Amino acid sequence: MGRWEPNARGRLAQAALTLYAEQGFEQTTAAEIARSAGLTERTFFRHFADKREVLFYGSDSVLDLLVQAVAGAPPAAGPLDAVSAALQAVGAVIQETPEPARLRYAVVSANQELRERELAKLAEFAAAMAAALRDRGVPELAASLAAETGTAVYRVTFARWIAGQAQPDLPELLRESMAELREVFTDRLLGSPAS
Amino acid sequence: MGRWEPNARGRLAQAALTLYAEQGFEQTTAAEIARSAGLTERTFFRHFADKREVLFYGSDSVLDLLVQAVAGAPPAAGPLDAVSAALQAVGAVIQETPEPARLRYAVVSANQELRERELAKLAEFAAAMAAALRDRGVPELAASLAAETGTAVYRVTFARWIAGQAQPDLPELLRESMAELREVFTDRLLGSPAS
Repeated sequence: MGRWEPNARGRLAQAALTLYAEQGFEQTTAAEIARSAGLTERTFFRHFADKREVLFYGSDSVLDLLVQAVAGAPPAAGPLDAVSAALQAVGAVIQETPEPARLRYAVVSANQELRERELAKLAEFAAAMAAALRDRGVPELAASLAAETGTAVYRVTFARWIAGQAQPDLPELLRESMAELREVFTDRLLGSPAS
Repeated sequence: MGRWEPNARGRLAQAALTLYAEQGFEQTTAAEIARSAGLTERTFFRHFADKREVLFYGSDSVLDLLVQAVAGAPPAAGPLDAVSAALQAVGAVIQETPEPARLRYAVVSANQELRERELAKLAEFAAAMAAALRDRGVPELAASLAAETGTAVYRVTFARWIAGQAQPDLPELLRESMAELREVFTDRLLGSPAS
């Protein structure tokens, strides 16, 4: 046991996700979350500015991970390879404990304001990866295109992972998606109506 | 002159954009917009539900244009070709009267809530194009990847067009970006640090 509330932040985050998923984001109060975690509302607000922040407080470390992975990709890696490696690094972290990510996705998807905020976060991730690519010497346009494309691939793949349409390993699904997009760019016949 | 206010909607939209750009979205009231257009506040609210809607009311017709262009692409066109054609069709419309689009971009960029709403609209466009691709017989994953990638390319290119870093023809810039991304997918050397 720590000095005060051991792992209060983690307990609050888990309680919040569970309650949001069970009864809806809008219907859940900070006081309920705190009570469910065995803590006080005051403690909740010591750790999170508001109910929404519980869903986004991890995004700073995701952004750091993405930027470090882009920067740390082998020198010979192309921009999309570096971006793919970064997204797979995040995918591997999520895959370790998938349940919170699945709950979070359900909560965010059910609320227009949260969906819009999520898209803004992804746009920040893309901008940060583009900057990291430029630091590697990638020209401006190629850097932006690779970062935004990678982020688009991530969105599509994450939804696919959630839907469980294929095996559940997120990094592997990301590799598959990137390979598929590469084919879309090269295989003209894909667009022909099936007949 | 029509029965009541001729072209009230267009006049209100133009007055709103001008005022938002001059004095900020938040600082502008519906009454000011109406006055500036020579109309009443009641007329404003007959045409738009709120101040924000003026900035998004055109998006339904953009969506229709995108879907029709994807559906109408030649049968042999690949999914990214069909998406490119659709985005270029929208780009051509914007290029005809670029000033409102530039003003609108400045207003939306300056406001977090509007930026998030804009990203949500782009996500709707991507989903609609993916559905139109599936109707062409494109498999689910390829359809989503092509639509989301195309939308990502559009975002990057539109910002480039606004920044005026190249010649100002939006459809041509879109073609360039798509060609550049195709190279990013094939040219491994682009990522090497310039040395």
